[in-house]
Amino acid sequence: MNRETTPTAGVILIGNELLSGRTQDKNLPVFIQKLATKNIKVREVAIIPDIEQRIIATVRRFREMYTYTFTTGGIGATHDDITAASIAKAFNTGYVMHSEALQILQAYYGENLNETRKKMAKMPEGATLIPNPVSGAPGFQIESVFALAGVPMIMQAMLQSILPRLHTGASLFSKTLITDLKEGQVAQSLAHIQDMYPQLEIGSYPHFSLDNLSLSIVVSGIQETALEEAVKKIEETLRSQGGHILKNW
Amino acid sequence: MNRETTPTAGVILIGNELLSGRTQDKNLPVFIQKLATKNIKVREVAIIPDIEQRIIATVRRFREMYTYTFTTGGIGATHDDITAASIAKAFNTGYVMHSEALQILQAYYGENLNETRKKMAKMPEGATLIPNPVSGAPGFQIESVFALAGVPMIMQAMLQSILPRLHTGASLFSKTLITDLKEGQVAQSLAHIQDMYPQLEIGSYPHFSLDNLSLSIVVSGIQETALEEAVKKIEETLRSQGGHILKNW
Repeated sequence: MNRETTPTAGVILIGNELLSGRTQDKNLPVFIQKLATKNIKVREVAIIPDIEQRIIATVRRFREMYTYTFTTGGIGATHDDITAASIAKAFNTGYVMHSEALQILQAYYGENLNETRKKMAKMPEGATLIPNPVSGAPGFQIESVFALAGVPMIMQAMLQSILPRLHTGASLFSKTLITDLKEGQVAQSLAHIQDMYPQLEIGSYPHFSLDNLSLSIVVSGIQETALEEAVKKIEETLRSQGGHILKNW
Repeated sequence: MNRETTPTAGVILIGNELLSGRTQDKNLPVFIQKLATKNIKVREVAIIPDIEQRIIATVRRFREMYTYTFTTGGIGATHDDITAASIAKAFNTGYVMHSEALQILQAYYGENLNETRKKMAKMPEGATLIPNPVSGAPGFQIESVFALAGVPMIMQAMLQSILPRLHTGASLFSKTLITDLKEGQVAQSLAHIQDMYPQLEIGSYPHFSLDNLSLSIVVSGIQETALEEAVKKIEETLRSQGGHILKNW
């Protein structure tokens, strides 16, 4: 498959609260959707606790594997906000006061900028800032790793502002068919068509609708003509087995 | 921290559709909630595509790190259902027809059991079945790894049926305070209290409510008396800084 010719992304959601059930992540769908506008595919997601070694290991692994790595969470002022310090360690670089970030905090907090809050201006050495229009404290970029806030409103503003920094991938085309056939009836034909079009990604997903188990077949790829051919072959196959195409788009 | 004295879990959500935005995972909150009834903490979640090498590497890493590993997705009959074969490879064991699983499929499908559907009875050698009351095809357990369906209704039934197989951890106590103070005002005191009670986990989470940024402070641990002491110290600290406790439970 040539699906990795275009830029890829890995997303690391950091925070004990996401694993305890206290908070349900709302940021992943935003990453997927916003990055799709640049034709960047999210290839892996990790949800990990605020534990230094876990953050270091995951950031190192992701930056080896994906064009871009995004983290959320752990960039506030409290003792469990250890994302910036951990990313500095992942890069074997210093964890230092960023003078521009400090100026932003001074402007935002004025005389309420205490020592603890100044922590939010500490970043890996050489990091570039990601502006935070909501609550002052910026995120940061170091090489291919972008550290964003966990609060959805802030995370979205930060992601929006960094989109221009990212390379755009090749356009991805996609087509979905819903049929009343069962997976077991079409599996062999789909596998055959997948073999004929290795440059496409063909997936099938059973799901319940109106008490019936229906099947969605999704074909995607960057080669539009091949995609149209493959979809036509799939439609013929479904009909030849007595199936109906309940919906397609 | 002694938080790993009790059994831990890692969850691997497998499926291209979870990363493309086509489907939003609904299973993770169920894992967190059901496993909490056995005092088992979810310590890491991975969302990965249907790619053999990614499944093998993730399963191997998780089974080294966590007491239990759960996977969802990829155990159907189509060409992109490669979870069972990949887990077999992760264990360096055979991928073989499970005779009991085949009997279940024969009973469920009758004369409609074709060669493709028989694939759903192939499992890592030595696997134990996980019954599927909804649509026949079983999941499986091999050592500490449990492979469940991705369809939420089926996944939930499977998880429910395996709960008795899991060891119960020590009871976890938890207390939450919501205050009108800002993170930067309490960070230092919280860090100090965390140092005094290393056996507890103290987290603080800013969030918006009624247009104001409020702060939740969550204390949890298996030692109830220490927890109550720590919570008392946090309440005193908040009040001494002019903060209010807006809510607690």
